[in-house]
Amino acid sequence: MPSRLRARDRVQGPCLGAPAYGSAVTTPRLVVEEELLRRNIDRVAVGARVAGVALRPHVKTHKCLEIARLQVAAGATGVTVATVGEAEVFVHAGFDDVLVAYPLWLDDDRATRLARLAGRARNAIGVDCTESAARARAMLPDVELMVEIDSGHHRTGCAPGDVGEVAAAGGVRGAFTFPGHSYSPDGGSGAAADEARALAEAGKALVAAGVEAPVLSGGSTPSLAHTDTGVVTELRPGVYVLGDAQQWELGSCSPDDIALTCHATVVSLAGGRVVVDAGSKVLGADRAAYSTGFGRLLDHPDARIVMLSEHHAVIEMAERPPLGTTLRLVPNHVCNAVNLADELWVGDQRWSVAARGRNG
Amino acid sequence: MPSRLRARDRVQGPCLGAPAYGSAVTTPRLVVEEELLRRNIDRVAVGARVAGVALRPHVKTHKCLEIARLQVAAGATGVTVATVGEAEVFVHAGFDDVLVAYPLWLDDDRATRLARLAGRARNAIGVDCTESAARARAMLPDVELMVEIDSGHHRTGCAPGDVGEVAAAGGVRGAFTFPGHSYSPDGGSGAAADEARALAEAGKALVAAGVEAPVLSGGSTPSLAHTDTGVVTELRPGVYVLGDAQQWELGSCSPDDIALTCHATVVSLAGGRVVVDAGSKVLGADRAAYSTGFGRLLDHPDARIVMLSEHHAVIEMAERPPLGTTLRLVPNHVCNAVNLADELWVGDQRWSVAARGRNG
Repeated sequence: MPSRLRARDRVQGPCLGAPAYGSAVTTPRLVVEEELLRRNIDRVAVGARVAGVALRPHVKTHKCLEIARLQVAAGATGVTVATVGEAEVFVHAGFDDVLVAYPLWLDDDRATRLARLAGRARNAIGVDCTESAARARAMLPDVELMVEIDSGHHRTGCAPGDVGEVAAAGGVRGAFTFPGHSYSPDGGSGAAADEARALAEAGKALVAAGVEAPVLSGGSTPSLAHTDTGVVTELRPGVYVLGDAQQWELGSCSPDDIALTCHATVVSLAGGRVVVDAGSKVLGADRAAYSTGFGRLLDHPDARIVMLSEHHAVIEMAERPPLGTTLRLVPNHVCNAVNLADELWVGDQRWSVAARGRNG
Repeated sequence: MPSRLRARDRVQGPCLGAPAYGSAVTTPRLVVEEELLRRNIDRVAVGARVAGVALRPHVKTHKCLEIARLQVAAGATGVTVATVGEAEVFVHAGFDDVLVAYPLWLDDDRATRLARLAGRARNAIGVDCTESAARARAMLPDVELMVEIDSGHHRTGCAPGDVGEVAAAGGVRGAFTFPGHSYSPDGGSGAAADEARALAEAGKALVAAGVEAPVLSGGSTPSLAHTDTGVVTELRPGVYVLGDAQQWELGSCSPDDIALTCHATVVSLAGGRVVVDAGSKVLGADRAAYSTGFGRLLDHPDARIVMLSEHHAVIEMAERPPLGTTLRLVPNHVCNAVNLADELWVGDQRWSVAARGRNG
């Protein structure tokens, strides 16, 4: 049986526009092009260094120790995470400066786990009101706080002028914001201006409240190029490292920058539709209002994923590749795609998505 | 430190409308109410038995051995899976009758893995064209095939009249269809009628091609109540076992039937918005055209999740529960939510999502 199967392997369809593969490997799988990954890491690291701002990349995008190590080697001063569970993975792997950029409401479990990390790294956690700040300082008297402010995304965060009150809890390092309204067509520059205005106001309020030289932390991939580095002292972009269809469609990356694709196989042409074996359980179901579909094809810019089920993507494209063809899909939102995978394929290596599913 | 943390635990906010918890447990987590789960399992099992049709539930919904065992104990004749990876998990756990209801295009890896399972269970795989059928029979001469037909969902599947040609490959057990166009308001009865018409035509074509008493397999949760059991001989619903916001909004379950919720904590009220600590990395990002939001709240039928980030759900609701409150969220699409979790909380037990991430 094995020898017949190996012979059959050569029947595998061609790979349109993508590098040839040494042997058939079951799809779907997430593949990272290391050269592009390193180029993205270096570009933003150099930009931050030249501008004189600290870079603390958000590792929720990749959840991968190997990628975070490349970011630190390129000059990142620490990493940003979204959850205590992610902090545990990175601290236990040796990362010694971790910011949980999330307005935590501490419970017993999370406080205990943060206390255990305190001796191993310099950590800070987010809060966005006087109650959560006081609670955090009462449960973890030595914890450093970053106060989240709302710069226009209207999700979490207090008003910039209110950071002084929150800072009364003590232990405040600075303020952070996520200018997430950058995720709209041409939203990057306006969101960056809002970010600068809000962080400048927060900075003044923190100094008035006795916080010396507060860290003023911002950054999102679509607003990154527009950052006012006269105000912002720290940047926390995430997606820039891998890229995705959202960034492609927002113009914040070109398809040539996209370092992660999902390799998928054409399994059905039965109804005249091109259907591949990757769906929402691999790509994520994200579809922003501005997105043109459920994902793109790297080698076919005109193609669109027009229908997405759990294990099917239906593609509208001019060509009709034969059954068995491998296509390179670009997920709309790479952070959610990576969080669905156990590992990333990088050349002949597999890198673990070490913090996958660490939501708590 | 631990004793102070335990004392603080009592500060934890109240749980609106939900059962009290013995102690604080970190959110977000997926919680299954076993009594409702068993009631859902029994209701459909009894319905199938009374109608004289086989029940082969789709276990992609829960990916959980404990739940599948309850389904078999209630009378399911076997299970349905979507991938070879899922088949491996269930066959190795002792399930001896597994259908991969997916139009597979076999590669070396998948064929080898299916061959290894052949001695342990009676398996069948899906194909939807002459090429994939011939390829499957060439690579795995003893494999049983189910031919997928398109009954109106327009995703995969050949035309019902074409099954005879596909059956020429040999080894065909019958035909299957997924009437997925049932996923639209009032779509259930029309999709069930389409399903019956298509399977009846496919059945005639298979008999004409020499397949004796072909299995005619259909079923989706929204069309289930409308199934024409004079035609359909096997049902493959999945979501009925747990329920979700899509089924609630389609009217194919009531909120009283929903057996899985995501318990999440209110972490921010800073901007006047209620924000909890579960986002698209926990609930999935699904939002069908007919959905009224990114998810619902079981105990607050008027509330809606109006904005969803990776770790934030912004909720519009009449009440403004205090920080620390636990709320029970209903994911839009439970299959994708479960696939994001490592385990389900069931009473004082945790059940593994054993086939999570088995996409290949």
